[in-house]
Amino acid sequence: MEFRKISQDPGCGARLGKITTPHGEIETPIFMPVGTQGTVKSLTPEQVRALGAQIILGNTYHLYLRPGHKLVADLGGLHRFMNWPHPILTDSGGFQVFSLGALRTMAEEGVTFQSHIDGSRHLLTPESAIGIQEALGSDIMMCLDECISYPADRSAVEKALGRTARWAARCQAVRKNPDQALFGIVQGGVYPDLRRQGAEQIRAIDFDGYALGGLSVGEPKDLMIENLAAATPLLPGDKPRYLMGVGTPEDLVEGVYHGIDMFDCVMPTRSARNGLLFTNGEKVVIKNARYREDAAPIDSECDCYTCRNYSRAYLRHLYVAGEILAMVLNTIHNLRHYLRLMERIREAIREGRYAEFHNRFLKERPPPAPTDR
Amino acid sequence: MEFRKISQDPGCGARLGKITTPHGEIETPIFMPVGTQGTVKSLTPEQVRALGAQIILGNTYHLYLRPGHKLVADLGGLHRFMNWPHPILTDSGGFQVFSLGALRTMAEEGVTFQSHIDGSRHLLTPESAIGIQEALGSDIMMCLDECISYPADRSAVEKALGRTARWAARCQAVRKNPDQALFGIVQGGVYPDLRRQGAEQIRAIDFDGYALGGLSVGEPKDLMIENLAAATPLLPGDKPRYLMGVGTPEDLVEGVYHGIDMFDCVMPTRSARNGLLFTNGEKVVIKNARYREDAAPIDSECDCYTCRNYSRAYLRHLYVAGEILAMVLNTIHNLRHYLRLMERIREAIREGRYAEFHNRFLKERPPPAPTDR
Repeated sequence: MEFRKISQDPGCGARLGKITTPHGEIETPIFMPVGTQGTVKSLTPEQVRALGAQIILGNTYHLYLRPGHKLVADLGGLHRFMNWPHPILTDSGGFQVFSLGALRTMAEEGVTFQSHIDGSRHLLTPESAIGIQEALGSDIMMCLDECISYPADRSAVEKALGRTARWAARCQAVRKNPDQALFGIVQGGVYPDLRRQGAEQIRAIDFDGYALGGLSVGEPKDLMIENLAAATPLLPGDKPRYLMGVGTPEDLVEGVYHGIDMFDCVMPTRSARNGLLFTNGEKVVIKNARYREDAAPIDSECDCYTCRNYSRAYLRHLYVAGEILAMVLNTIHNLRHYLRLMERIREAIREGRYAEFHNRFLKERPPPAPTDR
Repeated sequence: MEFRKISQDPGCGARLGKITTPHGEIETPIFMPVGTQGTVKSLTPEQVRALGAQIILGNTYHLYLRPGHKLVADLGGLHRFMNWPHPILTDSGGFQVFSLGALRTMAEEGVTFQSHIDGSRHLLTPESAIGIQEALGSDIMMCLDECISYPADRSAVEKALGRTARWAARCQAVRKNPDQALFGIVQGGVYPDLRRQGAEQIRAIDFDGYALGGLSVGEPKDLMIENLAAATPLLPGDKPRYLMGVGTPEDLVEGVYHGIDMFDCVMPTRSARNGLLFTNGEKVVIKNARYREDAAPIDSECDCYTCRNYSRAYLRHLYVAGEILAMVLNTIHNLRHYLRLMERIREAIREGRYAEFHNRFLKERPPPAPTDR
């Protein structure tokens, strides 16, 4: 994997770049649609690609349990299995395992957990997290880290920070395939000094990229931004920076401002399935009776397939009637909204006016909703 | 609407034709995918079209209740509402209303029923069935008929036959839009002499096409064929003939043999959503464990998007994981299987070898499953 920085915005940390992977190039800053179980829910890969997606995320936890990484490997790897010939990033499985709560126990060796599907017991270690991702064949792998929930006291965060650093070294030591990049993850909760400490620890290892984990997990927005801003400048400037599991359109604009290159979040896809549609103004709750006879598209400024061909009245009808096509058309719109925002962000950086774009965007938006991942 | 007979098979009743409608041409014999609530479930109209669909069916009962035919008319008609610019046939709503059982009562004026959605009371008459279909703007409308369930005694079938004829005359008398064709429907249960009587009654009215209703409603396959064969030759040769709600691939091949030009059935789409996939051999029950590691497509002879790009193992994974994409990919396959069968049928008629095609097809197939509509 190669990262080339193309330009730096003069007014803030935003930068334009290009990542080259064995499955193609990625323009940064980028948003990665989430394809949890080997599918970006409801869409064909061609539909995802046509929206402007350049890379998608696969979830190691889910794919390990079902259908199993060995099966995926036997069938030619995740790209082939799911018919997505473009770049894929896989997470380590850690975030999902930690969110199992009582169903998992932590130890230095790794984390023992019970499957949410059948209750079977499994051990996820830094070594097995890499082994699974190597079997899946992703272009970018993530280290197993210890993700702390919010709120957490300082001593718990410190402890997780040390373990995350030791696990990062174990991940780096065990990786075998030079065609698969590996990113380290900075933890540190909402303590800016611990975030800085985490950044120093992880940057000491020569990863292909660096991520911030454990943000947008329920903390107030200003704490998220404070911690993001504390750690990002310490990450190597010549490597991609990835803010995991984030977030709202406002979060993306803020993250880019501070120098983030990559994002992922289930928000556009999950919201779509719940009938919550993004626009540049207010969100559209499509089931509302006010849209019953509305001949307008979701967003008259949007260039997506859904907005070019369907009225709010039709989309409301599909949603109320429980039709599968509602999920498809809503997902197309929300993902395009996100991916188009990233296009506008890249254009603003290219033209050296990102700080202004950022300020105007946040001023014009309705007050931010709580983040959700 | 215009129907042009292109050729007649020398060995049986099969014929090749072309129907011209305001929204385009239809090659017959044709299978019409069902788009019950203004969507062929799970697919975009472009996906449906790419499968080779030339005309789809919309359900008047469903669209009348939700979103309402007046709303559809206000938004430019059903074609525009659902983004399907090609031909549409609408049924009369009768079949769904009759299948409500205790929730409906019959009278000479029409049928009173309670909505399955909210229990509200409605009256469907021959006149309102036409009015609703004119509001929807379909290319082909169907007369309201009295559809008798199976089994039914002779006197009940005779009574329904008389009413169906009187209602057909009322439908013909009230239709206003010359751009929308109107088809009459022959009932008669499983009594061949009543079927012939029904055909005589309905052909006495100058409809644009003629349909057989009330078959494939649970009767044994041989009774269906006997009654189909009894009535079809009495229908005008210069008008299209439509066998409603039928059926299995074997039923289509049999119907064409006896001179049927048009079919519709939920079988390919509903089976797809239940993970039952058609092939030229045995049906594939995709959730079965035997497909867990199967790298082959559903049907190696199939040219559909799903078979060209996905393994049975992937499709099984999607289905078991409850992914929406399972419904999409399965529906694409099953519909393409049906539409490709119709292409092969038309080719055989064009080449004057349909009787042979019919005989070989039925000999090579596994024993037929019970019909389902």
